[in-house]
Amino acid sequence: VSLHSRSPGEFDRIRRILAGAPPLSAEVLLPPGDDAVQLAGGIVLSTDLSIEGIHFRLDWMTPEEAGNRAARAALSDLAAMAAQPLGVLVSVAAPGDGELAERAMAGVNQLLLDLGIPLLKRDLTRSPGPLLLDVVVVGRAESPLLRSGVRGGDELWVTGTLGGAAAAVLLLQAGGAPLPEGLRAPFLNPTPRLAEARWLREAGVRAAIDLSDGLAGDALHLAEQSGVALHLVASKIPLHPALGELPLPEGSTALDLALRGGEDYELLLAAPPGVLGGRVEEFRSRFDLILSPIGGATAGSGVHLDRGDGELLPLDRGGFDHFRGENR
Amino acid sequence: VSLHSRSPGEFDRIRRILAGAPPLSAEVLLPPGDDAVQLAGGIVLSTDLSIEGIHFRLDWMTPEEAGNRAARAALSDLAAMAAQPLGVLVSVAAPGDGELAERAMAGVNQLLLDLGIPLLKRDLTRSPGPLLLDVVVVGRAESPLLRSGVRGGDELWVTGTLGGAAAAVLLLQAGGAPLPEGLRAPFLNPTPRLAEARWLREAGVRAAIDLSDGLAGDALHLAEQSGVALHLVASKIPLHPALGELPLPEGSTALDLALRGGEDYELLLAAPPGVLGGRVEEFRSRFDLILSPIGGATAGSGVHLDRGDGELLPLDRGGFDHFRGENR
Repeated sequence: VSLHSRSPGEFDRIRRILAGAPPLSAEVLLPPGDDAVQLAGGIVLSTDLSIEGIHFRLDWMTPEEAGNRAARAALSDLAAMAAQPLGVLVSVAAPGDGELAERAMAGVNQLLLDLGIPLLKRDLTRSPGPLLLDVVVVGRAESPLLRSGVRGGDELWVTGTLGGAAAAVLLLQAGGAPLPEGLRAPFLNPTPRLAEARWLREAGVRAAIDLSDGLAGDALHLAEQSGVALHLVASKIPLHPALGELPLPEGSTALDLALRGGEDYELLLAAPPGVLGGRVEEFRSRFDLILSPIGGATAGSGVHLDRGDGELLPLDRGGFDHFRGENR
Repeated sequence: VSLHSRSPGEFDRIRRILAGAPPLSAEVLLPPGDDAVQLAGGIVLSTDLSIEGIHFRLDWMTPEEAGNRAARAALSDLAAMAAQPLGVLVSVAAPGDGELAERAMAGVNQLLLDLGIPLLKRDLTRSPGPLLLDVVVVGRAESPLLRSGVRGGDELWVTGTLGGAAAAVLLLQAGGAPLPEGLRAPFLNPTPRLAEARWLREAGVRAAIDLSDGLAGDALHLAEQSGVALHLVASKIPLHPALGELPLPEGSTALDLALRGGEDYELLLAAPPGVLGGRVEEFRSRFDLILSPIGGATAGSGVHLDRGDGELLPLDRGGFDHFRGENR
């Protein structure tokens, strides 16, 4: 359901490129396949490009909302590592006399003010084409959560509810009525789980990924990077409450939206058994957010869905996408 | 002559935004107005966006050349601080099936292999519009050269020759013949003066800026950031040898190209008196590059051009641009 198309072969290409590239300095600690780059001294950084027509549409949101959302998505990469944000560098390009760029930038600024994160640099450029923002996020994490940290026997947990952003896209694509209030926040204002991630790391979580591609695709990233098999229990996946009330396209289910939808920016986490079970209420009262156990890790590879019928359904990244009408 | 339009009011806007922004962490040392951001621990980073139609044209260069040149321009920000590159993060967006993005990325890769700089992360995205690259450069500089380091009494020096890139743009805009070989390198392959800058800092240079906007505009940045007046001696400004042979538009001179042209990516430097004078030959033999004294700094403000007629001509960033046919 995501407007963003991430090529399935991208990870392999990165590995090939890195294999033939100059050796890394000892000052660069690169977690292969992670969204952020880790430098010696605990600095992590990542960059995220948001392009009109690919990642957002200006008939679906204002330029301010597009800027705000682009910064949220970029900061989510820091949340996935449980990093403390140090600041943000923003490049905006837009057609016209600069007003559009200024408006998108104002949306970024508003988010940074709300979160107390400094703007380190901004650059506005004229673009002959779409509005676009590149957001570079810089953070500190002495011992970042990585995608490669899952061990066999770990429990899988997820923050918040899933599928809300995908449901909003469905409604917007169908046209007509404005978004119901309950779907505006997950789509326009996804929350980078920054403080939550640091709390979870302290609590004993040892691997994480933020859900930008959908639960299925991002679980596959975790499984690949950690060299384990993951299973998700369908009945335990927390669905956004609005999904129950939506007319869905034929053949599509609310679970599909959670698995394939993407852009929820919640965290998928792996923790040793028993570490989080007793602390769900504490987490909920502190962050006003649910924390749900949704599966676990074992030796092996791949990601399987347990639908309670005794069979494990293999999930792959290239499943049919009902909303794009194409294989992704 | 630059395709890139940098708004004269941009600096003031940055100051206003920073004034109302969240306070910086003690871990972020921000040199206001510098192109790169400096973090505690000696890490510096910068980001540079290159957009087809604004910063480059694909009828003037191949996608590989565009990628290669974008990476050169981005690394020049590290050279200006005398930083040692640690690596590069690249986002490429392009229309079509990905071939264009791959070709631009191949140009980036080739440069990084040539210079021995690691690629830390790459991200290819589909774009509905122009080809664009955002290049994030990460480096280390324990005591970076800053724009604010010029002191009254300092000498001004410049590396290499100026105006070559601007001359190439003039020829390309006129159409017709291919670029003469001597102008291909300054336009397509400007060299980020990375090793040169570190040598110069060791030699005693205490401020620098890379020439992306043209000598006049970049000297004004130095003067403003350092709170000094600068003067440039017209007869000492080293012009690219091809400028003498070019038919220039009426009213335009080779000196105009050097002052206003931009994108030469040479370094403008300030050094205490006598520090560099005895080392010009050593520099030339080491780097195969000339190093020229072109003026000095005094108390005051602004930049003036000494044409040898007893008068000092004030230079401003907003001077008439012969090539754009508009005030910039």
